[in-house]
Amino acid sequence: MTPFLQLIFVLTIILFASKLGGYLTSRIGQPAVLGELLVGLLLGPSLIDLTHLVFITDRHLGEVVAEFGEIGVLVLMFLAGLELHFSELTRNTRVAAFSGILGVLTPVGLGLLAGRMFGYSFTNAAFIGLTLGATSVSISAQTLMELKVLRSRVGLGLLGAAVFDDILVILLLSTFLALSGGGSALDIFLVLLKMIAFLSLSAAFGLWVLPKLSRRISKMPISQGMLTFSLIIMMIYGLAAELIGGMAAITGTFLAGLMFARTPEKNQIEPGLRSLAYSFFVPIFSVNIGLSVDTHLLNLNALW
Amino acid sequence: MTPFLQLIFVLTIILFASKLGGYLTSRIGQPAVLGELLVGLLLGPSLIDLTHLVFITDRHLGEVVAEFGEIGVLVLMFLAGLELHFSELTRNTRVAAFSGILGVLTPVGLGLLAGRMFGYSFTNAAFIGLTLGATSVSISAQTLMELKVLRSRVGLGLLGAAVFDDILVILLLSTFLALSGGGSALDIFLVLLKMIAFLSLSAAFGLWVLPKLSRRISKMPISQGMLTFSLIIMMIYGLAAELIGGMAAITGTFLAGLMFARTPEKNQIEPGLRSLAYSFFVPIFSVNIGLSVDTHLLNLNALW
Repeated sequence: MTPFLQLIFVLTIILFASKLGGYLTSRIGQPAVLGELLVGLLLGPSLIDLTHLVFITDRHLGEVVAEFGEIGVLVLMFLAGLELHFSELTRNTRVAAFSGILGVLTPVGLGLLAGRMFGYSFTNAAFIGLTLGATSVSISAQTLMELKVLRSRVGLGLLGAAVFDDILVILLLSTFLALSGGGSALDIFLVLLKMIAFLSLSAAFGLWVLPKLSRRISKMPISQGMLTFSLIIMMIYGLAAELIGGMAAITGTFLAGLMFARTPEKNQIEPGLRSLAYSFFVPIFSVNIGLSVDTHLLNLNALW
Repeated sequence: MTPFLQLIFVLTIILFASKLGGYLTSRIGQPAVLGELLVGLLLGPSLIDLTHLVFITDRHLGEVVAEFGEIGVLVLMFLAGLELHFSELTRNTRVAAFSGILGVLTPVGLGLLAGRMFGYSFTNAAFIGLTLGATSVSISAQTLMELKVLRSRVGLGLLGAAVFDDILVILLLSTFLALSGGGSALDIFLVLLKMIAFLSLSAAFGLWVLPKLSRRISKMPISQGMLTFSLIIMMIYGLAAELIGGMAAITGTFLAGLMFARTPEKNQIEPGLRSLAYSFFVPIFSVNIGLSVDTHLLNLNALW
């Protein structure tokens, strides 16, 4: 098999398994995303090791699948933003800020404590805490959307908290690096400045330029013009979040979704985005999480 | 930049450039696909060399983009099949067979002749002819669809001819290999047998199993279930064409489209497929054709 046929083979298995897994868990009253994660675990190195089957000779196949999945989570967070109104999110600022801050401080504090108790130095223990501080919002967002409670008070609080979380962890990490000798106070200031630059630039573009641009593009005779335009803007926001803001790309695409949610063209892009997301990229994302877990590395004896 | 961000950067440029190029050529009354091919040429090694810009450190990026493009042409031919009725295509069998056969014999004959005139041995000259015999149907199909003449007599004849073309070139190539000592008469028979096996298996599945399966899947509570199902079937047909039939994967996905065209669920999958195809995968396919052309390799002095 050529590398391309190997990719098609693996994608066929992933799409089939994820929809089957999702269907089965939804039949027993659980979110479909649970089944998708579970089949990923079965297809991963723990059991079947899909990307290393005997006839898979392309050593980069796993990376390519992971990249499809990463595009999936970008689109997923874009859709999550698209379902919300900016005003709804800001109305819940207090809840979001409070839970975001607690959601970082608790794991960081507990991680630090545990690290110290196991005899690590303060620096190492703090680092353990910080790695536990970052929350994965993508699976929560997917579950909230599936259960149709993303726009509830709980859903909005959760997503808002995730944005605070992302900002706070990066600030803490750079502060930590500065204090432990890896950087200076100027570095912390610079990190803060970059975030502010990204957030204000992307908000300004989204509030003032995007609506006019969307209106013009939507009238142009380009096949799937609005949908492609929204994907381009989504990717630019993701890139800008990483390159300008030093933040996560999904924070950027979430913001892009929030911006598009305010335009009347939102309704033109949503059905196509859903097709793109849920028929192809998002199932690959969910399964790929499982694919990257190797349960053999879990030392169950350590529990005793 | 991480490899993933490099990919996102390159995809952003490709999507933007292809839609811009397509828009510009459609403004001057030409098919959009022409503009997409042209911007591909500009972005390729001939001028900008997009996948080798200074900050692109991922040496596999070009391959990944090519794989996205190859998925694009699979979906494109699937859509082409979906727009047709099986009966329409078979009604034009005579036109298709005649033009398909002529479309192979003419370039093969002329290539052979030219090879002999330039002093190549018969074997080498015949090989030159055979490489010219295979027709690229994908760009024709895209143009026909864009101009909305795919279902005209000319469009149907062209697509049917392409299927004959694929079959004939493979038969000629294996006959040629057998005659030139690389195989036996049994090999030719085997090649023929594999084709017949694939075509009859896929027709049987498509005519008898697919309609029932589609009806069941369409009633299941799976998000984008029908669309994902059609993508899975499409990829299986593509794989089977290559692995069982020894034919091109696009012949397989075209056949899969023809089969789905007969089901009532066709209308459920077509809008989503169009979104998937024309907002993302097909533009990458068109641009990637240009990306793989290096005009520096054209020796213009040889014309004199």
